[in-house]
Amino acid sequence: MKQVIVVRKDLKLTKGKMSVQVAHASLEAYRIAEKKYPDKVKKWLRTGAKKVVVGVKDEEELIKIQKSIPRKIPSKLIIDAGKTHLEPGTKTCIGIGPFDDEEIDKITGNLKLIN
Amino acid sequence: MKQVIVVRKDLKLTKGKMSVQVAHASLEAYRIAEKKYPDKVKKWLRTGAKKVVVGVKDEEELIKIQKSIPRKIPSKLIIDAGKTHLEPGTKTCIGIGPFDDEEIDKITGNLKLIN
Repeated sequence: MKQVIVVRKDLKLTKGKMSVQVAHASLEAYRIAEKKYPDKVKKWLRTGAKKVVVGVKDEEELIKIQKSIPRKIPSKLIIDAGKTHLEPGTKTCIGIGPFDDEEIDKITGNLKLIN
Repeated sequence: MKQVIVVRKDLKLTKGKMSVQVAHASLEAYRIAEKKYPDKVKKWLRTGAKKVVVGVKDEEELIKIQKSIPRKIPSKLIIDAGKTHLEPGTKTCIGIGPFDDEEIDKITGNLKLIN
């Protein structure tokens, strides 16, 4: 079990800004997963709540990823309200899972970790 | 209402690693807050779930912050299992809240945003 957060690299978010966007995605995807698969999610929490952050080139790639997520896998696209540095409505990242590793790898397996 | 995540700057975490640690802290503090103050937390979620990431110099400063948190404010210290790059048992960050802005500002108000 893991949760993967897919972030746009072209926004060139700073460490702090990226951390906030990833936390939004992580929490929102968790909330959906927790309602749909409470037992799975409890197990994930008990075993370290693995989270992985990977990158895509731009909004187009982000949307392509979003469209490839099967309905059974909990996910949440984060759209920034634009109160600070981003334009209102900027799609920044997607939280996927927690869900089975193999199922998530089918979606994000070829994306690189963000350093 | 806001949630503040306090991160150690001396660990020199990369964007991806910091995002994961912050997401751990955000989710764990949320889970505590949600049980203790469900109505407050629902309101926070409905109004954008504001999250702020600030820095401290080192572990000593992180622990000092932890000790200054009143019992009524939900918080969670994140200790890394050390499976990837950090030493096992490394204290990386603290998630505080969501809780009232003024109450959290008493604890973290003089800490600077992480860029």
